[in-house]
Amino acid sequence: MIGVRDASFVPHVLDEYGRQVRVAMADYLKPREPRRHLYNLVSEYPRRGGRMLRPTLCLAAARAFGADIGDAMNTAVAIELLHNAFLVHDDVEDESDTRRGRPTLNALHGSPVAVNVGDAMIFLGLRALLDNGERLGLPLAMQLLNEAEQMVRETVEGQSTELGWRRDNATHLRESDYLHMIMKKTCWYTTIFPIRAGALIGRRSRLDRDRYVRFGFFAGAAFQIQDDLLNLIGDPAKYGKEINGDIREGKRTLMLIHVLEHASSDDRSRLLELLSRPRSGRAEPDVDWIRQCMDRHGSIAYAQRIAHALAGAAQHEFDTVFADVPPSSDREFLRAVIRWVLTRT
Amino acid sequence: MIGVRDASFVPHVLDEYGRQVRVAMADYLKPREPRRHLYNLVSEYPRRGGRMLRPTLCLAAARAFGADIGDAMNTAVAIELLHNAFLVHDDVEDESDTRRGRPTLNALHGSPVAVNVGDAMIFLGLRALLDNGERLGLPLAMQLLNEAEQMVRETVEGQSTELGWRRDNATHLRESDYLHMIMKKTCWYTTIFPIRAGALIGRRSRLDRDRYVRFGFFAGAAFQIQDDLLNLIGDPAKYGKEINGDIREGKRTLMLIHVLEHASSDDRSRLLELLSRPRSGRAEPDVDWIRQCMDRHGSIAYAQRIAHALAGAAQHEFDTVFADVPPSSDREFLRAVIRWVLTRT
Repeated sequence: MIGVRDASFVPHVLDEYGRQVRVAMADYLKPREPRRHLYNLVSEYPRRGGRMLRPTLCLAAARAFGADIGDAMNTAVAIELLHNAFLVHDDVEDESDTRRGRPTLNALHGSPVAVNVGDAMIFLGLRALLDNGERLGLPLAMQLLNEAEQMVRETVEGQSTELGWRRDNATHLRESDYLHMIMKKTCWYTTIFPIRAGALIGRRSRLDRDRYVRFGFFAGAAFQIQDDLLNLIGDPAKYGKEINGDIREGKRTLMLIHVLEHASSDDRSRLLELLSRPRSGRAEPDVDWIRQCMDRHGSIAYAQRIAHALAGAAQHEFDTVFADVPPSSDREFLRAVIRWVLTRT
Repeated sequence: MIGVRDASFVPHVLDEYGRQVRVAMADYLKPREPRRHLYNLVSEYPRRGGRMLRPTLCLAAARAFGADIGDAMNTAVAIELLHNAFLVHDDVEDESDTRRGRPTLNALHGSPVAVNVGDAMIFLGLRALLDNGERLGLPLAMQLLNEAEQMVRETVEGQSTELGWRRDNATHLRESDYLHMIMKKTCWYTTIFPIRAGALIGRRSRLDRDRYVRFGFFAGAAFQIQDDLLNLIGDPAKYGKEINGDIREGKRTLMLIHVLEHASSDDRSRLLELLSRPRSGRAEPDVDWIRQCMDRHGSIAYAQRIAHALAGAAQHEFDTVFADVPPSSDREFLRAVIRWVLTRT
C-alpha cells in the first residue's frame, strides 16, 4: 500500500529533482557583468548546495496533480532563487558569519554589497516567474505571481515580528506567538507556496484561499522546529552554520521560550540578564550555560515532541486534503517528506 | 508656440499629479499589523514627501500618448513605492543618517529592520503592478512587469558598480565610467522606465527595445548630476540631507572624479590619502578641504556645464522622438521638466 514505505526514498527524489532545478536555475545565474560585486555573488549561495526541499515540493505537487515536470520548472527555480535571496538578507539582518559551511556574503563582502545582491536575487526570482507566461499562458502566470507576492508579504511580516522580538528583547512570549511567527516567516515560502503553486500548475484552475494552508503550516512548522533543534544538537561536521549560534544571537526559538517559562527563578534572572546583553556580550560560557539550562528543563525534548506532533498533524491533514489525488510516487513523496524532515541531521 | 513657455508651470504639475499619486498610494500604505516594526515604517519615507518627479513623468507620458490618467495610476504608484524601497536600502548601504530632513530608517530602527522594510516595499510596488491586470488587461500588465524587472536589474547593476568603487576605493575613474554607472543606477528608474511605461499604457502597443532610452539617459543624467551638485551647494534649510555628505561618504561624483584628475600632485596625494580612510576618518576640516579643492579646480562649474549640456541634448532628443506626439500640456511638461531639474534648489 502506498504510504507505508519508509522515508528512505525521499533523499533520492530530492537529489534527482534538485539536480534538474539546478540545471534550469543555471540559466538565471550565468556569469555576466558586473561580476565582481554582483553576479559572481548572486550565484554564490546557490552554488554552495542546499537540500532543494522547496523546489522539489513544488515539482512533486505539480506532477501529483497531473502536470509535466517542465510546466513547474520555472516556478521551482523562482522558489529556490527567492529562498536564497531571503538567506542573503537574513544573514545581513542577523549579522551571521557562516552559511552552508562558508562565510556569509556579508562577512566576505560587507553588508552594503550583500543587501544589493539580495535585491538582485529577488528580481531574478521574479524574472523566472515572468518567464512562465510563454509556457503556461498569461492567466496562470499572473496567478502564480499573485501567489508569490502574497507569500513574500507573509514572509517579511514574520521576519519583522522576529526582528522586533530581538530588538525589544521580548521575554514574555508563548508557544502560540512562536507558531504564529513561523507560520508567516517559514511556512509560506517553505511549504504553503510550493504546494499551492504546484497544485495550480497541475490543476489549471483557481484554488480556494485556504487550500493546503493548514497542511503547509503543520509540515512547515515541524520543519522549522527541527531546523532550530539542529542548531543545538546537529552534527558540527555536517551542519553548515555555527552550533548554538541561535543562542548567541538571542533567537526566540521554541526551546528558548520554553526554558524562559520553566526555569527556576534564579535561572530565569540569569537568562534575562544574558539576553539583555548585545550579541557580543554573550561569551562561549554564557552560551553553554543557556544550552545546559535548556537540557535541565527538558526544553529540547519538549520541542522534539511538538515537532513530532506537528508532523503527525500534517500527515493526518494530508490524508484529507490530498484524498482526491490519485496514487503516484510524487504523492507518496509529499506524504513521506513530512516525517523525513524530522530525521535530518 | 508650445515649448517656449518658461518652466514655472512644472512645479504645479508635480504638485497636482503628485497629490493624485499620494491618494492612490495611500491604499497600499494603510496601517495594518505588524505595525511597529513593519507597516508603520513602510509608510515612513513616502509620508515625508518627495517631489513625485518619477510618477508624474509616467502619468504625463501616458496622457501625452492618449491614456486616461487612471490607466497609469497603479504604475505611477509602483514607481514611487519602488523608488522609496531603493531609498531605504540605499540608506542602509550608505550608512546614511538623514533622509528628507529626518533620521533615516536605519538610524531610527537599525539596519536589520530597515532591510526587511525595504523588502516589503519592493513587494508593495510589485503588488501595484499586479493590480494593473484588471484595468489594463493581462498582456499590457505583464509587459509592464517585464519592463519593471529590467528597470530594477539595471538599477542594482549600477548600484553594485558604485558600491564596488567605494569598497575598492577606486581612484582612476573617468567621466565615461561615471555616466555609464548613473545610466544604470539613476536613469532607468528615474526617467527611462516612467516614460516607457507611460508610452506603453498610452499607445497599447509594443515599444522598440531602445525607444526613449537615449532621451531618458540625457534627462536622467542631468538630473543625477544636479542632485549631486545640490549635496554641495544646496540650501541647507531646504536640502533634506547633510550638506557635503557625499564627500564624507567618499561618493564618486562627477566633481570628485574631476578634481582627482585635475588636482596638483600635492593636492592629489592628500585627496587619495583622505579617500583611503574609512568614512569616520574624514573629519569636518577634511571634508571642507576637499570641497575647497573642488572649487579651486573648477570641478563644480565643470559639472554644472555637463549637466546643462546633457539637458540640452535631452531636449534635442525629445524633439526627435516625441515628434509624432500631438501638442498637449502633458507633452509640454515632459519637455519643460528637463530644464526645470537644473533650477531646483
